[in-house]
Amino acid sequence: MATSASPTLDAAALGRFLDGPHAKVREEVREWLSREGNAPQPDLPLTEHRRQVLAWTKDLASTDRTTMGYPSEYGGRDELGGYIAGFETLAFGDLSLLVKCGVQFGLWGGAVQHLGTKKHHELYLRDIASMALPGCFAMTELGHGSNVQDLRTTATYDPQAQEFVVNTPDDAARKEWIGNAACDGRMAAVFCQLVVREQERGVHALVVPIRGEDGEPAEGVRIEDCGAKLGLDGVDNGRLWFDHVRVPHEALLDRYATVSPEGGYTSPIENPGKRFFTMLGTLIQGRVSVCGAAINAAKVAQVIAVRHALTRRQFGPPDGEEVTLMSYRTHQRRLLIPLAGTYALHFAQEQLVGSMAEAFTGDGADDRQRRKLETSAAALKATGTWHASATIQECREAMGGQGYLKANRLAALKADTDVFTTFEGDNTVLLQLAAKNLLTDFQDEFGELDPLGTFAFVAEQVAGVVAERTAARELLGRIADDLLPGRDDGGDLLERDTQLELFRWREDHIKAGAARRLRGAIEDGGDPFQALIDCQDHVVLVAKAFAARVVMEAFAEAVERCAEEEGKPVLARLCDLYALAEIERDRGWFQEHGRLSSTRSKAVIKAVNTACAELADHSGPLVEALGVPEAALGDARAIEGA
Amino acid sequence: MATSASPTLDAAALGRFLDGPHAKVREEVREWLSREGNAPQPDLPLTEHRRQVLAWTKDLASTDRTTMGYPSEYGGRDELGGYIAGFETLAFGDLSLLVKCGVQFGLWGGAVQHLGTKKHHELYLRDIASMALPGCFAMTELGHGSNVQDLRTTATYDPQAQEFVVNTPDDAARKEWIGNAACDGRMAAVFCQLVVREQERGVHALVVPIRGEDGEPAEGVRIEDCGAKLGLDGVDNGRLWFDHVRVPHEALLDRYATVSPEGGYTSPIENPGKRFFTMLGTLIQGRVSVCGAAINAAKVAQVIAVRHALTRRQFGPPDGEEVTLMSYRTHQRRLLIPLAGTYALHFAQEQLVGSMAEAFTGDGADDRQRRKLETSAAALKATGTWHASATIQECREAMGGQGYLKANRLAALKADTDVFTTFEGDNTVLLQLAAKNLLTDFQDEFGELDPLGTFAFVAEQVAGVVAERTAARELLGRIADDLLPGRDDGGDLLERDTQLELFRWREDHIKAGAARRLRGAIEDGGDPFQALIDCQDHVVLVAKAFAARVVMEAFAEAVERCAEEEGKPVLARLCDLYALAEIERDRGWFQEHGRLSSTRSKAVIKAVNTACAELADHSGPLVEALGVPEAALGDARAIEGA
Repeated sequence: MATSASPTLDAAALGRFLDGPHAKVREEVREWLSREGNAPQPDLPLTEHRRQVLAWTKDLASTDRTTMGYPSEYGGRDELGGYIAGFETLAFGDLSLLVKCGVQFGLWGGAVQHLGTKKHHELYLRDIASMALPGCFAMTELGHGSNVQDLRTTATYDPQAQEFVVNTPDDAARKEWIGNAACDGRMAAVFCQLVVREQERGVHALVVPIRGEDGEPAEGVRIEDCGAKLGLDGVDNGRLWFDHVRVPHEALLDRYATVSPEGGYTSPIENPGKRFFTMLGTLIQGRVSVCGAAINAAKVAQVIAVRHALTRRQFGPPDGEEVTLMSYRTHQRRLLIPLAGTYALHFAQEQLVGSMAEAFTGDGADDRQRRKLETSAAALKATGTWHASATIQECREAMGGQGYLKANRLAALKADTDVFTTFEGDNTVLLQLAAKNLLTDFQDEFGELDPLGTFAFVAEQVAGVVAERTAARELLGRIADDLLPGRDDGGDLLERDTQLELFRWREDHIKAGAARRLRGAIEDGGDPFQALIDCQDHVVLVAKAFAARVVMEAFAEAVERCAEEEGKPVLARLCDLYALAEIERDRGWFQEHGRLSSTRSKAVIKAVNTACAELADHSGPLVEALGVPEAALGDARAIEGA
Repeated sequence: MATSASPTLDAAALGRFLDGPHAKVREEVREWLSREGNAPQPDLPLTEHRRQVLAWTKDLASTDRTTMGYPSEYGGRDELGGYIAGFETLAFGDLSLLVKCGVQFGLWGGAVQHLGTKKHHELYLRDIASMALPGCFAMTELGHGSNVQDLRTTATYDPQAQEFVVNTPDDAARKEWIGNAACDGRMAAVFCQLVVREQERGVHALVVPIRGEDGEPAEGVRIEDCGAKLGLDGVDNGRLWFDHVRVPHEALLDRYATVSPEGGYTSPIENPGKRFFTMLGTLIQGRVSVCGAAINAAKVAQVIAVRHALTRRQFGPPDGEEVTLMSYRTHQRRLLIPLAGTYALHFAQEQLVGSMAEAFTGDGADDRQRRKLETSAAALKATGTWHASATIQECREAMGGQGYLKANRLAALKADTDVFTTFEGDNTVLLQLAAKNLLTDFQDEFGELDPLGTFAFVAEQVAGVVAERTAARELLGRIADDLLPGRDDGGDLLERDTQLELFRWREDHIKAGAARRLRGAIEDGGDPFQALIDCQDHVVLVAKAFAARVVMEAFAEAVERCAEEEGKPVLARLCDLYALAEIERDRGWFQEHGRLSSTRSKAVIKAVNTACAELADHSGPLVEALGVPEAALGDARAIEGA
């Protein structure tokens, strides 16, 4: 049972709770962002912006913070969790700097670290960490953004010369959107179709020099600037073409596959599809990082918009003083529901980072662990980045015209985070990846059940379907919900267990339904690809329901963990709001599946309104606890706002 | 019954149907946009952008197109409908130009035309039309954006000098966001609290010179540049302060109120509140214009994204060719549902412009007509601009990285239209204005009903409430819907009358419910302002449901009007999609109110998917028919897309 909100909330104590295990590195990054000259600047022209971001990146590289995820022998601290926490915190500042760091230390450095072997680590990691060797992660091609497995740059092994020949066969195969490529990058991890002894071996990465010390493109390499973008203009994205560029035998990042000097190909992972997905697994870190960054960017917008709503007055009772924007129900809903989402995602992200650090440290994860991580990272990246886009937009509008001035940061937050929904894996594609994993696991679980268990499970499903078809289940539910005294007010929806059960039940039900449809379509002799397209909206829902459940559980767990003096009662109420708002948003589905009667569904709306009204009183400390440095909040005019 | 979609669609014929009564002016503007040098340029620096927009505005002013809404004696053509149609079409191009024209010819010119009298028309209209006299509409203040009635700039009449003294009492009363103010404006219609003989008379507008021929601010006027904005950088927004600036007696725009030279105040409208709202009525044209512009900006994004989806291939069956993005259900849903919305809004806008031209021509509208127009303009402006924001965002994401390049126009479309949701009246505030009018009309209607009619109406409402409370209605509906053969597939939801009835029923039900709640709260002795806040989310729904019904009726009416060879069958199917997608979106509500059983609710989802799959085959001609000039579609790379 959720406790009612307490009258005061200690923002500092709650802030320490939010900072969690990596409080120190978060504090260090905040301190860096608060130094003179390090705050985001609202309107730098592209060239100056790039120059500024490069200078900042070098300054950060002179600490060990950007590389603390690397092994300690190459300048790191073996602390992946801390690295991500620091990276996330950097998202309070200029997001071009964040992305530049992500490209250099996360993607370029990560490719060398995760796909390379000791010789590559020895050669490159230290210089990557110090920014002495800026580099690129050259995977995406113009023709193949999402479907990376079919990219078309080739690396053909020449056993005579003991060299690989890297080549761009046509314009659609040019590397596109490559960060660090337009100006600063000197080398690139280039993803190619490997050809050895005329046999295609699938996608592998090689280290290829692209630019000399003099800044000129290396021989055979053509570089073009992507030019002005919607946002992130401080990042020098570029295009790369390779014209039969020769690199030595050691250029192959050979953790998952080796080519002998004579041209013998061996890999510890036999299945090429599986090998490819294992290599792509290194993208997990990128997705987790982007998710955390998106959540923190949303926090910045929320501090600005909530402060504005608590100060700005407009309209009021006749002959009375004007009231604050936060007094209005529509304003409470538009700001506080996203705020509950940000808190929920914050805790889910904290868990995800913990799991990732565990899986990537020591011997690494087994297949099952890795897949679980991949699933969570994909689903949360999509959920977190869409949340950020929607939240920042809501904050922009809630600020009226003030939100439209560049000086007030909302413009940059909006523009810069916009691409988060489609880079490091397009969100819709990622949701399908997550759903595919979930459905595979579901099938596996099925297979492992004993006959009796299987039977019971199937029987339950069948009963469920029959119940829905005849509407009997709904009728029963309705009678129970609506006619028993005290159940029609939706009061039990404030119980945490009821909330959690609804999230879990929805996930299970959607998953079972999608599995049934897919299997049915294929068993009926249908084309599997067409079956997937026909069920695609359903499949995407599997991942969304999964993510919502994971996020809700993380929030509920955090509330349990939180001490009274850290704000437990208010946090519990905010968790109610997250749960209720999500049930409200999807109340069409819950009614369709007999889990909400119409009366209870209406009660959910009321319960959301009530929670918003209560939380409005705590909204000031709730945003202050998010720990966004003042320097990152832009021009104060938005806040004074008059 | 909707006809099934025909195999071919003549884009040109449908395009002519869409162009409607003002085809000629639309064609002229398209031709202007297609001239060399007139296409939007993706990355102009602020200063050059402003210069370019000024030059374009002058070029347009040299035709009679920008001012065809003015009376013919001052260079116009008395064709308000044609003016709006031309303005809307301009939204295919650079939106800074659109807004600059809106400020000059619509707001500044409109204030003189609608609030001024013959002497003002004689003095200014011709020069405004030719751009010889650039000017501003100085209403908004920093402290009072939405609550204009409480703005605080004063105009005090000095009968000795026969002058008005215009003054900014403090910084919060400075005029903010004023278009044309930072660079080009020479005069401004300044909205002030009028004080005559020490009596406050409410908000009135005066013409005040703000800048000399030399470009320097006029005496007593301070001007500041708002600086860089999220978008619309080609518009020179500025801030204005007035330090006891004296203007002659004739400066008062005196259509609705006069001050005699001696200081006698008279107005044909006695009630100050009503007088104020009559003056604000002149904002209607601005809202209608913005709504049309938003819809057309959405069209540009949709042409680009649909072409991309029909060309770009990604993934496919194993060993098969990759398939187009448009083949995917998720992609169909994200592009075609908004496309149906754009078509629907196009027809609603056409109707609205027609009503407005009628009301503003000749003797003008009576109170009731004017309020009806105000209601529609407010509700549709909010609906249309939010639709544009969401649609352009969806298109941006559906283009992946390509949508993030400035060269491909999505960036500018997104940034420039963003402010549409909060300027010319904040959308949430406008929805409340519309709802207030609707609820007032509802009450009036109530009062006029004969006793028997009233009784019948109330009885129906009560019965409805009782039915919902006991769930009896739902049970009955369920039995009828689910158990009668052939009714559980939702097939009747494809009937136009069923669709229309659902939209109408929802509107009536929400309106009656809100009225009941408000009255109940006030009759119980509650504070009316608090009652309004408590019902605010409900009140906003009144306006949203109203807008959806108006839009749906306009679309249905257009389908009826359309000839077979103009694409009637496809248009009918698109109208189905609009209706079904809206019912799907709000299926939580329809279930809550017993209008959809759970089985039928699920059937709606399937019906949306089916309509999307069918319309995907027509999506090419459907976007070509929107008539966006090629020159406005940005860099072709996005479309080739590989």
